[in-house]
Amino acid sequence: MIYLDNSATTIPDPSVMKSFEQASTQYFANPSSIHQLGGHSEHLLTKAKNQVASILDVTPSEVIFTSGGTEGNNTAIKGIALEHRKRGKHIITTEIEHPSVYDACKSLEDLGFEVTYLPVNKNGVISIEDLEAAIRKDTILISIMHVNNEIGTIQPIEKIGEICKQFPKLFLHVDHVQGFGKVPLELRNSGIDLCTLSGHKIHGLKGTGILYMRQGVNLFPLFHGGNQEQSFRSGTENLAGAVSLGKALRLIKEKEQTQGTELKSLQAILREKLTEIDEVQINTPPEAAPHIMNFSVPGTKPEVIIHMLGEQEVYISTKSACSSKQKEESRILLACGYSKERASSAYRVSMAYSTTEEDILQFADYLQQAINQFRKVME
Amino acid sequence: MIYLDNSATTIPDPSVMKSFEQASTQYFANPSSIHQLGGHSEHLLTKAKNQVASILDVTPSEVIFTSGGTEGNNTAIKGIALEHRKRGKHIITTEIEHPSVYDACKSLEDLGFEVTYLPVNKNGVISIEDLEAAIRKDTILISIMHVNNEIGTIQPIEKIGEICKQFPKLFLHVDHVQGFGKVPLELRNSGIDLCTLSGHKIHGLKGTGILYMRQGVNLFPLFHGGNQEQSFRSGTENLAGAVSLGKALRLIKEKEQTQGTELKSLQAILREKLTEIDEVQINTPPEAAPHIMNFSVPGTKPEVIIHMLGEQEVYISTKSACSSKQKEESRILLACGYSKERASSAYRVSMAYSTTEEDILQFADYLQQAINQFRKVME
Ligand SMILES: Cc1ncc(COP(=O)(O)O)c(C=O)c1O
Ligand SMILES: Cc1ncc(COP(=O)(O)O)c(C=O)c1O
Repeated sequence: MIYLDNSATTIPDPSVMKSFEQASTQYFANPSSIHQLGGHSEHLLTKAKNQVASILDVTPSEVIFTSGGTEGNNTAIKGIALEHRKRGKHIITTEIEHPSVYDACKSLEDLGFEVTYLPVNKNGVISIEDLEAAIRKDTILISIMHVNNEIGTIQPIEKIGEICKQFPKLFLHVDHVQGFGKVPLELRNSGIDLCTLSGHKIHGLKGTGILYMRQGVNLFPLFHGGNQEQSFRSGTENLAGAVSLGKALRLIKEKEQTQGTELKSLQAILREKLTEIDEVQINTPPEAAPHIMNFSVPGTKPEVIIHMLGEQEVYISTKSACSSKQKEESRILLACGYSKERASSAYRVSMAYSTTEEDILQFADYLQQAINQFRKVME
Repeated sequence: MIYLDNSATTIPDPSVMKSFEQASTQYFANPSSIHQLGGHSEHLLTKAKNQVASILDVTPSEVIFTSGGTEGNNTAIKGIALEHRKRGKHIITTEIEHPSVYDACKSLEDLGFEVTYLPVNKNGVISIEDLEAAIRKDTILISIMHVNNEIGTIQPIEKIGEICKQFPKLFLHVDHVQGFGKVPLELRNSGIDLCTLSGHKIHGLKGTGILYMRQGVNLFPLFHGGNQEQSFRSGTENLAGAVSLGKALRLIKEKEQTQGTELKSLQAILREKLTEIDEVQINTPPEAAPHIMNFSVPGTKPEVIIHMLGEQEVYISTKSACSSKQKEESRILLACGYSKERASSAYRVSMAYSTTEEDILQFADYLQQAINQFRKVME
């Protein structure tokens, strides 16, 4: 099997799985229970939070465990909007956000908020001037992703953070779901107020995630209740999920350090191989995240080609997983200014640190074969 | 170990754990991915949903997988309130709800909603007349729990459902987190529009839950995004969680059938044993759920007694887990009309189907000893 759909989801690391299982059975008690068993669970939760905080270089109280990236994004966006609505009702985001940001913003329009969607250039990058021009007196939130999930574009978050520092009442949220473990991002003193991570994109388990909330940031929780997670995310803690996520963060950070350059070389090889295929038009810009490669093969039907590759146990995707069943064009590629044709014939290869050169070469071969076969059938 | 804090959380069933692990590793692909691996995952998700639907006797599209009871309650309450706010802004609930309902309702007051909190009688039961009198033209939601988590009281949901049927524009939500697997509740044709379940209260895993939404009910999702779960709960599905939860539901339903009477007898034995201890005042009414027994020992400090019992590896709780660290009186017992003294010296024993008569007898002995020791130290 050549699994190249790691931006949709990754296979859980066996040691992550194991720590989940151990914590689930050996620390099953509710961390809020006042008896000794509860105390043990609470202690382990604190340890997990400390571990995560140290990996992210933030303080433990700034770490909120969530059920995933979608929860983190919605909590940040709706939570800031509802809590600070009296100060202003204007939000800035971009045209190429993941649906969990884009549609969360759209949903706030129904509740009386106004949203500016910043355009992007051909490379999928926003303009800092556009951003500065969009900021108004009543702007309360800017939500901009770090790494785009379809094309791998990296936004200039550091610069955006510097700008936001000049507006102390304006919150900056970053969707770092695709970037974490692939493209480093400082949180401390960055101007970033909230940042979303997801477990299952980094060989952690589905149903786990983190929302970083800078000390002092306040929001309207999506979940009220027992006041767990500093009252920002009530609900009996998924302790085993938290422990397993701590492990996943640690492992991917290690790999980022030891195999980061390797992944970049693989991407370069993939780019070269794709360029050798006549019909391919590459959409991922040169300065992108190392694991994602998006390209179009105009005239082909992605569902068909992907199915053909699947027959060879080679798995890639079109667009992002969650919008892949909608047959229309990619909203992201259209925003980059590509034609409908190109935006509706796009493919995404997304690698993991376990991807090998052999995988890439084989994939390129299979792709060429699949395109040939498709053309023959269509003739 | 004698674990009698099953209303706070339960130990996961080994077979539930196993199905989680198998699904996590063997069906790790994203159900939304269009390649064959994604198709396999989607197929398993459909199977899990069908299984749950058949256990609940509802249709599969009425089942929404969530991260737990708190999410289910907040989604139902805030989701209905925000979606239907133009029709009315009045909500009815009770004074004895779990914080995930109570505080969710309170939070809506900040957003301009008006909430009526129905009082309860000494047994912790609302009056149907009160409920009928509280319904107004602008009432959009009634949220009433089935089984109370502190004292085990059962609300007359069937009657409430019949009343709600007369108001087709009014939604009825039931928090069934403590009742499921212990006190049967029909959903089909019941007048219930939404119903919350939680995995970890029935030997499932933390981070799993279900929100039943009757066909045709619409709400404002807390999570917007990739439109998973009929668009009511976006986010990459926790497929392994869903599969494991299906198993947990099946197992607890079997136990309810085969061991339901046994649990009732155990509760009767516990009640008798507690009555034999002079200082004990029982708070759980005779017609309660079979697994919960709440009592007060005025003059004692629950933290101290619970710690003493813990030294013997006997685990019980005071109030509900999530409010147990707040030292003040139980809001639930005060609502039942008990004194501050009685409400601040309350204990909760919550059993599982694995609890034995021996456990109960030993617990009663240890409790008597702990009370004696406490008195001696205080003299
Ligand atoms: C950029 C980005 N943000 C958010 C999400 C949502 O995360 P999750 O699948 O954990 O809900 C995803 C993946 O689906 C993503 O790629
Ligand atoms: C009656 C009731 N409702 C809701 C909840 C919340 O469920 P969860 O712990 O799964 O968030 C609980 C338990 O904490 C409960 O006892």
